[in-house]
Amino acid sequence: MIAEIISVGTELLMGQILNSDAQYLAQMLSSVGINLYHQCTVGDNLPRLKQCIETALVRTDIVLLSGGLGPTEDDLTKWAVAEVLGVEMVEDAASRAHIQSFFERSRRQLTPNNYRQAQFPAGAIIMPNSCGTAPGCICETGEKAIVILPGPPRELQVMVRGQLLPYLQNKSDVRFVSRMLRVVGVGESSVEYALRDLIHEQSNPTIAPYASLAEVSLRVTARVGVGEDASALIDPVVSEICKRLGDAVYSTADESLAQVVARLLERERKTLAVAESLTGGQICEELVSVPGISQYLLEGRVTYTNAAKIRLGVKEESLAKYTAVSEVVACEMARAIREVSGADIGLATTGVAGPGPDENGNPEGLTYIAISTAQGEQTMSMQNAGTRSRLRRVAVLGALNALRANLQEAAGSCILTGVDGQ
Amino acid sequence: MIAEIISVGTELLMGQILNSDAQYLAQMLSSVGINLYHQCTVGDNLPRLKQCIETALVRTDIVLLSGGLGPTEDDLTKWAVAEVLGVEMVEDAASRAHIQSFFERSRRQLTPNNYRQAQFPAGAIIMPNSCGTAPGCICETGEKAIVILPGPPRELQVMVRGQLLPYLQNKSDVRFVSRMLRVVGVGESSVEYALRDLIHEQSNPTIAPYASLAEVSLRVTARVGVGEDASALIDPVVSEICKRLGDAVYSTADESLAQVVARLLERERKTLAVAESLTGGQICEELVSVPGISQYLLEGRVTYTNAAKIRLGVKEESLAKYTAVSEVVACEMARAIREVSGADIGLATTGVAGPGPDENGNPEGLTYIAISTAQGEQTMSMQNAGTRSRLRRVAVLGALNALRANLQEAAGSCILTGVDGQ
Repeated sequence: MIAEIISVGTELLMGQILNSDAQYLAQMLSSVGINLYHQCTVGDNLPRLKQCIETALVRTDIVLLSGGLGPTEDDLTKWAVAEVLGVEMVEDAASRAHIQSFFERSRRQLTPNNYRQAQFPAGAIIMPNSCGTAPGCICETGEKAIVILPGPPRELQVMVRGQLLPYLQNKSDVRFVSRMLRVVGVGESSVEYALRDLIHEQSNPTIAPYASLAEVSLRVTARVGVGEDASALIDPVVSEICKRLGDAVYSTADESLAQVVARLLERERKTLAVAESLTGGQICEELVSVPGISQYLLEGRVTYTNAAKIRLGVKEESLAKYTAVSEVVACEMARAIREVSGADIGLATTGVAGPGPDENGNPEGLTYIAISTAQGEQTMSMQNAGTRSRLRRVAVLGALNALRANLQEAAGSCILTGVDGQ
Repeated sequence: MIAEIISVGTELLMGQILNSDAQYLAQMLSSVGINLYHQCTVGDNLPRLKQCIETALVRTDIVLLSGGLGPTEDDLTKWAVAEVLGVEMVEDAASRAHIQSFFERSRRQLTPNNYRQAQFPAGAIIMPNSCGTAPGCICETGEKAIVILPGPPRELQVMVRGQLLPYLQNKSDVRFVSRMLRVVGVGESSVEYALRDLIHEQSNPTIAPYASLAEVSLRVTARVGVGEDASALIDPVVSEICKRLGDAVYSTADESLAQVVARLLERERKTLAVAESLTGGQICEELVSVPGISQYLLEGRVTYTNAAKIRLGVKEESLAKYTAVSEVVACEMARAIREVSGADIGLATTGVAGPGPDENGNPEGLTYIAISTAQGEQTMSMQNAGTRSRLRRVAVLGALNALRANLQEAAGSCILTGVDGQ
């Protein structure tokens, strides 16, 4: 089966936003064994949009459109599809009610154009949108199908995973099952080097590395027929990767480092408090994004200034003698936040985010991380390079990873979960 | 003049890498006044690649191809162009020498296929590559041109800025200048409703709204000839938009809300401390991303638990009587963090991020924001809908926006900067 992706929106065409939807859709199609030969991007222009849909319908089985489902007159995708298929637009009562309730709950004013989002080409299978007001839909035409998805990446991704993939899987007799491993503290080329024979010699499952800011993911994908067991193919390869990369693999189930830490805190029944300098609240922010964390994360402080560090409990002499970016100050921050909050574990970061060295001559990218427990303090230092946002991101991941190691040690073993994901 | 971008590479088509080249090229074309109606992506497949080039040559004046200039047999872009134009491939002596010297300097072994990178369609204008081994080229055909660029973003960008843009600017006599306005607290459909006559009746400048998570941006774009003043076209429209949307416009120079707040703190010489509950450190995190903030942001606390709120200075009775998600507790948090830190302004958030209501029955999405100064406390409440991450994002923007209003009031006027951007 062959598919084509059409991304709709003048802001994509003008380069004002990056087209991450096309990449996501391409990955998902590949995961269910559907081939992709063309992607295209077109603006909010009815004749050109219709022409792209017509061209795609000739050469492919499934046309996926994303974007242009907003409430404004510029949002034309559903109208273009209706014209290509020669059907009327009809209102869906359930979608209308969903939009009304969304605006009521958020106490925002509903304007008449909002109801455009409840109109669909006649005969469409509607896909409700749990994250926004624009439902998607599938229009079947003979053996082919046109799929219409919302543009905002989060809305699109939830709809694809929950509704579109099951639909597509029904149309295909092979199935691709992936497991995503996440790796921290090792660069993409080192990961690839360590696994080069596996990557090049394996064809089922395949192994594909993806690099993002200061992290690497590995997707292990098996191709299986109906009723075949994907785990039998995937498990041995995952074991071999974990053996080679060791402790750098922090999840075999596509969890974030914050999710892994939250799970370990829960399992070990340990409470945490965090004092952040260069990371500026980002560690807390990541942890708070995990629901239910309030039982384990007792307090966070952003002690970006020396005065705030002193109020927390760092000694003035230590700041004078060693400067704010030092092992001693990191330790004192971690100990102080643990004692002040009554938590089992205190975690602290201090460093130079740049641009340039700090007023004491500490170089940009120098970072100290400290963990304090009743048994004492542990520290680590890092010297990294890059932009302010990269340096801060590396410090956040370094701190969460140090905490993970500490919690795993407390548990006496490396704890990894492995469940099949899409 | 109309252009089309063709991105070449199976790894792009499969979603293994993100297509940032297309975005960059689109922005550059727009900056020199060249229209773009289509972008497409195609794999390393000669017949499909040739077909895309042929289609593009019919409907556009300039076809830009990126990728497929590597040394392997998979790299077909230049061969496809030669076949479409009906010309031979010829070797360029200067490019051959450049490749040879590159390998000598990096002490890497040169294999025969590396010289594929020195071959070009006959008659091409060659663009040397200062960052890598693959030169680009421009093939003129009648009034039209096919431009071939390397895929690695850094190589492409240096070549575009240094060689392609001067070539294109010579072909174009108009230029596009944009200014980006940012709006908070009003939905995309309401913004469009308030400006619908301007959006539909204006053709120079044009006005385009873009929605992102809980924010709306408006791009005002003027088309000007050589020597013409873009501000004369843009300024009156920006003034009218600001008049209609009022205080909801927080920047006319594409700044983030955190940047605006940081600038206002600096201008007013006011210091800030923040106590966050549901926002979990995200307010501090956004402010710390602005370099130089340490002079104004004295301290942040993530008081997610009741115990942490009490340690900060919230009264136990207030928590018992009003619950943690209440106006009273928000006020006490803001006052306590101001007093503890010695800052001029204390900012606090408390709310229910969900999923579901809290243990006291406060509904998901209920949020209180408080600002404390020596003059007393101000509060605001919000009831929003959406996912946990959306609710927290809306709370962050609401808090920063309340702080902006407070600082602007202190300054006695609405302060907006306006500078021309591209």
